[in-house]
Amino acid sequence: MATDRKLRMGMVGGGKGAFIGAVHRMAATLDGQIELVCGAFSSTSEKSKASGESLYLPPDKAYGDFEEMITKEKALPEGERMDFVSVVTPNFMHFPPTKMALEHGFPVICDKPVTFNMEQAKELKQIIDKTGLTFALTHNYTGYPMVKQARDMVKSGKLGKIRKIVVEYPQGWLAASLENQGSKQASWRVDSTKAGISNCIADIGTHAENMAEYITGLKIIEMCADLTTFGEGRTLDDDGNILLRFDNGAKGILSASQIAAGEENDFNIRVYGEKGGLRWYQMEPNSLIVRWLDQPTQIYRTGGSYNGERATTNSRIPAGHPEGYIEAFANVYRNFAYTLRARMQGKEPDAQYLDFPTIDDGIRGMAFIINAVASSKSDEKWHKFTV
Amino acid sequence: MATDRKLRMGMVGGGKGAFIGAVHRMAATLDGQIELVCGAFSSTSEKSKASGESLYLPPDKAYGDFEEMITKEKALPEGERMDFVSVVTPNFMHFPPTKMALEHGFPVICDKPVTFNMEQAKELKQIIDKTGLTFALTHNYTGYPMVKQARDMVKSGKLGKIRKIVVEYPQGWLAASLENQGSKQASWRVDSTKAGISNCIADIGTHAENMAEYITGLKIIEMCADLTTFGEGRTLDDDGNILLRFDNGAKGILSASQIAAGEENDFNIRVYGEKGGLRWYQMEPNSLIVRWLDQPTQIYRTGGSYNGERATTNSRIPAGHPEGYIEAFANVYRNFAYTLRARMQGKEPDAQYLDFPTIDDGIRGMAFIINAVASSKSDEKWHKFTV
Amino acid sequence: MATDRKLRMGMVGGGKGAFIGAVHRMAATLDGQIELVCGAFSSTSEKSKASGESLYLPPDKAYGDFEEMITKEKALPEGERMDFVSVVTPNFMHFPPTKMALEHGFPVICDKPVTFNMEQAKELKQIIDKTGLTFALTHNYTGYPMVKQARDMVKSGKLGKIRKIVVEYPQGWLAASLENQGSKQASWRVDSTKAGISNCIADIGTHAENMAEYITGLKIIEMCADLTTFGEGRTLDDDGNILLRFDNGAKGILSASQIAAGEENDFNIRVYGEKGGLRWYQMEPNSLIVRWLDQPTQIYRTGGSYNGERATTNSRIPAGHPEGYIEAFANVYRNFAYTLRARMQGKEPDAQYLDFPTIDDGIRGMAFIINAVASSKSDEKWHKFTV
Amino acid sequence: MATDRKLRMGMVGGGKGAFIGAVHRMAATLDGQIELVCGAFSSTSEKSKASGESLYLPPDKAYGDFEEMITKEKALPEGERMDFVSVVTPNFMHFPPTKMALEHGFPVICDKPVTFNMEQAKELKQIIDKTGLTFALTHNYTGYPMVKQARDMVKSGKLGKIRKIVVEYPQGWLAASLENQGSKQASWRVDSTKAGISNCIADIGTHAENMAEYITGLKIIEMCADLTTFGEGRTLDDDGNILLRFDNGAKGILSASQIAAGEENDFNIRVYGEKGGLRWYQMEPNSLIVRWLDQPTQIYRTGGSYNGERATTNSRIPAGHPEGYIEAFANVYRNFAYTLRARMQGKEPDAQYLDFPTIDDGIRGMAFIINAVASSKSDEKWHKFTV
Repeated sequence: MATDRKLRMGMVGGGKGAFIGAVHRMAATLDGQIELVCGAFSSTSEKSKASGESLYLPPDKAYGDFEEMITKEKALPEGERMDFVSVVTPNFMHFPPTKMALEHGFPVICDKPVTFNMEQAKELKQIIDKTGLTFALTHNYTGYPMVKQARDMVKSGKLGKIRKIVVEYPQGWLAASLENQGSKQASWRVDSTKAGISNCIADIGTHAENMAEYITGLKIIEMCADLTTFGEGRTLDDDGNILLRFDNGAKGILSASQIAAGEENDFNIRVYGEKGGLRWYQMEPNSLIVRWLDQPTQIYRTGGSYNGERATTNSRIPAGHPEGYIEAFANVYRNFAYTLRARMQGKEPDAQYLDFPTIDDGIRGMAFIINAVASSKSDEKWHKFTV
Repeated sequence: MATDRKLRMGMVGGGKGAFIGAVHRMAATLDGQIELVCGAFSSTSEKSKASGESLYLPPDKAYGDFEEMITKEKALPEGERMDFVSVVTPNFMHFPPTKMALEHGFPVICDKPVTFNMEQAKELKQIIDKTGLTFALTHNYTGYPMVKQARDMVKSGKLGKIRKIVVEYPQGWLAASLENQGSKQASWRVDSTKAGISNCIADIGTHAENMAEYITGLKIIEMCADLTTFGEGRTLDDDGNILLRFDNGAKGILSASQIAAGEENDFNIRVYGEKGGLRWYQMEPNSLIVRWLDQPTQIYRTGGSYNGERATTNSRIPAGHPEGYIEAFANVYRNFAYTLRARMQGKEPDAQYLDFPTIDDGIRGMAFIINAVASSKSDEKWHKFTV
Repeated sequence: MATDRKLRMGMVGGGKGAFIGAVHRMAATLDGQIELVCGAFSSTSEKSKASGESLYLPPDKAYGDFEEMITKEKALPEGERMDFVSVVTPNFMHFPPTKMALEHGFPVICDKPVTFNMEQAKELKQIIDKTGLTFALTHNYTGYPMVKQARDMVKSGKLGKIRKIVVEYPQGWLAASLENQGSKQASWRVDSTKAGISNCIADIGTHAENMAEYITGLKIIEMCADLTTFGEGRTLDDDGNILLRFDNGAKGILSASQIAAGEENDFNIRVYGEKGGLRWYQMEPNSLIVRWLDQPTQIYRTGGSYNGERATTNSRIPAGHPEGYIEAFANVYRNFAYTLRARMQGKEPDAQYLDFPTIDDGIRGMAFIINAVASSKSDEKWHKFTV
Repeated sequence: MATDRKLRMGMVGGGKGAFIGAVHRMAATLDGQIELVCGAFSSTSEKSKASGESLYLPPDKAYGDFEEMITKEKALPEGERMDFVSVVTPNFMHFPPTKMALEHGFPVICDKPVTFNMEQAKELKQIIDKTGLTFALTHNYTGYPMVKQARDMVKSGKLGKIRKIVVEYPQGWLAASLENQGSKQASWRVDSTKAGISNCIADIGTHAENMAEYITGLKIIEMCADLTTFGEGRTLDDDGNILLRFDNGAKGILSASQIAAGEENDFNIRVYGEKGGLRWYQMEPNSLIVRWLDQPTQIYRTGGSYNGERATTNSRIPAGHPEGYIEAFANVYRNFAYTLRARMQGKEPDAQYLDFPTIDDGIRGMAFIINAVASSKSDEKWHKFTV
């Protein structure tokens, strides 16, 4: 079992028109380890069936809602039923299907931020800890090979003790009020009943926080946030600038924006140690720029023979053939799949494939949102990062 | 039929360790239109079965050779048998399976150069013309959205009459003699019994030729080639510099190299018209740089709302989330699949999905190889490009 | 007078080995409007004479100290004496020669920050206001043509109302303790008796502040600073991260660092308005990147025929021939010289040549240093920017 | 003598409106080694005087023509007369003043191509050889520090035996017919009575040829040229593509264009050896990109502490403060001046300052023009490069 077949994925959300659902499907299936076998794709049974049809699923595999999906799939024999659930709904709908899936014994891979609020996140952690089920969170950007190379270089001490971290995620797509122009993507993100207490920080600030901690292994301990709502009529933040302090004494800046007019997704990070510094830009993800005090700048490249193990195993094609967003996203799914398959076979997962974001990342992400919002509202300069 | 299911692909070649086979599989399945159902992956039945197993195919779907695959699949009912064949073998093995597949009524998608020699290419064209079967050639680089945007801009006359074209494909991987160090990729390419009369020009020069003609719509009519074999012990070219003349009077340079030490796959093209010029680089494929006589330089970007129809429909994700080599490759498969599906349904294919390389591109590619080799050997300065 | 000859410059500071003195001399003389005629180059008469000799000045024109220079030159007839004084000493030595020069009727061009403390700066302003003498401050980076183009574009409203400004000046040269390794440049900057109350913020943070206000025309009204001293044994800041609030409601980040290991002088600014955003990088200063909500990105280039008047008149050579740091610096001197010459001739200076930093920039710079240091020490989150 | 004063330069050409004259003056005086003392700036005495006035020269130092200048200056005592002559006229006017100056004992620095035809060039060489006077040719692009670093790296063998060289100089300024729109720069260049037998190849192709040979130390031995005249009504080439063969067996491409619409001055070179390759771009001149077979790409930067002696001594300011076209140009003048001063003092010039282009570069440049034009007209494929 699970040795001679692809892993079977059921999806919650990701109906027609949902950008991120299609990305999850491409990412999940890219490496031939996973196939989509069923889904509860939309809020209505009719729409879900239409989505299922366009995905060439049998009509009875497009369920009306996630409860139906989980219940009916659970009733099938192993190998016929889905092996795990992928949750790709808006934030407020992460928790219910994830919880139910886990409680029915299904591993889950879930979009970020992990839940609508911290209580839910902590409850999930309890369930995961209790059940021992595999859970992954799609902080997809950490799937890029050069991000893994950056992490390796910091970890190995090549840069020396880290002193400064600058992480930015500027977007410009909400500079105009798309939520009033029929954009589904915009509408739920600026709606506090669906997105939670934050828009920008929750949606992309969490990626920045996760990236900074992932690459450096450091933890934020204090922050001073200035969140802003620029778009007329909005209630949630669409921009945020945050000073950071890390647990080793390093200082940092985190900036996220949806109103940086003209920017696409210029997510980037710079990390400076005592001996050198590195830079990585999501829009040119296959280069890692490393600068030294007294040596020429180096450019590490995806696929380079000189890269470490993690960068190498998370790359598919020869250097110079660009791997992009979908491939990085697929690395999260692939590592999740390898780990899940090993566990289904009763084996210890290979350590290198355990390199995917977990519920702990999810909880830190929720804490980041909560602390950022609190700090921004507060007059105290330094807000302790509490979880 | 063919409306409620994915198209079923059988693959020839692409066994374990073959780089390009894996790329074809990822590209074919990325958009959820195609599934791999069988294959003759390797030269021995045993290896083919091992490959099939690693791809989670049923044992009886990993055939010993392509003849067996085509014969047995043909015997199955429609919907159970494969719908088309993907040929991803080294050059000398393109023709036999392609011919047989077509003669058994299977559409084919085939790697480039289309065949080992021109006779084979022309024979394929006859078969395709006679049968009316869909045939695609994976000049994958023309699948990039910004290449399509470039083509649109030239076609629309925005650049004015084209005067100069510079197209380069520098690689450095054969600067060292990898063929003596166990590289399977290197070995067959430098072996004239497998690659044909050319290594570098056949392998990557044809991509450059195809790109120049695809973007500009012009045809090469004369050329002056200087092919070189730098690697010790090699008999085929590993570098080539060619002066070009096009049918509208434009001049050009085509340069391809496998000994440009340190280069990855820096395929790039520059096209200059009377009013403006454009640049595209495969290693940063989501930007198209357009320069004007008296206006600021423009950067067109994959996913930009200002792009033309073709660039838009050949892109999957929002601007700033890089799409790469696999996505571009997948565009060839996707357009092929949409066209094939329409024809299977008795419908006229949508014109925009007919935008994939065909047997005519294959024949021009073969002619390009033949003319380049002949020109290089000749003392005549200008060699007429004959087909 | 002053119509048929170059303007005559006397220099204070800039002796052998001083980096910035040589830059000032190259910048001053580049455009053929100014010649160096005398100097008090060093702290000792001997060193000053040696410097004068290497600059091919007559021995009697290398003075022992600035008092001697000003007194003796004053005694000479117009046309033989110097026309103005250039002050290029370390911070603590800006005020005395500047004051004395002004009081003796000599216009002054002075390095930044303008003085050692605010009292001095305000005293200078009083003298300048009273005497009406021309005074320029070498915030040289605002001399770049593309900075002027950026300012024009903001001013003209093309970007819409400004919402966000990010300005950074990362250097890495003080990541190691150069002040303990014989670096004269490092030693005085980390010495509070010579640099003042701040090192990093005073030295390069002021450039960032000046640039942000210059390009946008906005004023900082509140700030929240986190200055840090990383280098062992140092007492002054070598890194600073600051949240900003501007007088139109815009938010900002200013980051300056001397410990960003591996960075050279990656001074850069990004400005986002409601309709578009721009980026400028000092290390590639001849490009101004402008992004729009729904149009291709534009690259404005030094020398482009489409640029505004200020960018054009502050450029010397055709587009594509890079102009650099010295040329930008020279623009401050050239505009100062044109203005000074006009005034010497009793004419109204051309408005476009009044485009150089003045004592008011100097006072804002001093205020910026003082407020940044105060904010960093304070527990209050938002520190009012007071002058 | 010549130890206590700047070297005194007389200029031929470079009157008002001449772009290159102003560049020469800025370059000559940048480093404080040279001062302009006289000139024959224009074709009429009146214009020459107006130019002299705008340059703040005494009226009697703006001569009516070069004969007058040379004769009258010669009559002055050493230290009052000019020390050398700078020739910055259009091509056809290089030879007469250069010859006369040399024959009157004045060293010369001259713009390129050195003369109007080969006879003149060879005659100059004879005079120079006979007189032993210092002569420099302003192939200014070889003055960039990173070009010198490139040369060092090739020379030291770090790249291994050179196999391939690609050198390009694309401009777009003559895509439109500026010569019909009052452009003085354009008019003489397309006029065979002033430019000689070639426009594009003479004007910028020679820079490319010089750069390739300078960096690699190799010599072109055969070439196959395709020169084209695109601009309506023109008689000389405005574009050229040339295949090259070098004396060590290396192959190459040289491409120069004035009709590459939208290009500014994107002069660039790539050199590939057996072990690595390098790239340099004039428009980002402070970076030298070096790629290796199995190591991360390196970026050498102007001002880097790791650079060789030549790169270091030809740079003025700390890394990250861009040096540009004028600074590179100034390196030719500075090295010429240091050499000239040493010789005037009866000393052996420092070898590192002999690093400027000489009459031999000039003769090779003339030969390059002649061979390129001949090759382009010929039906023979490989034209021997003869001098």
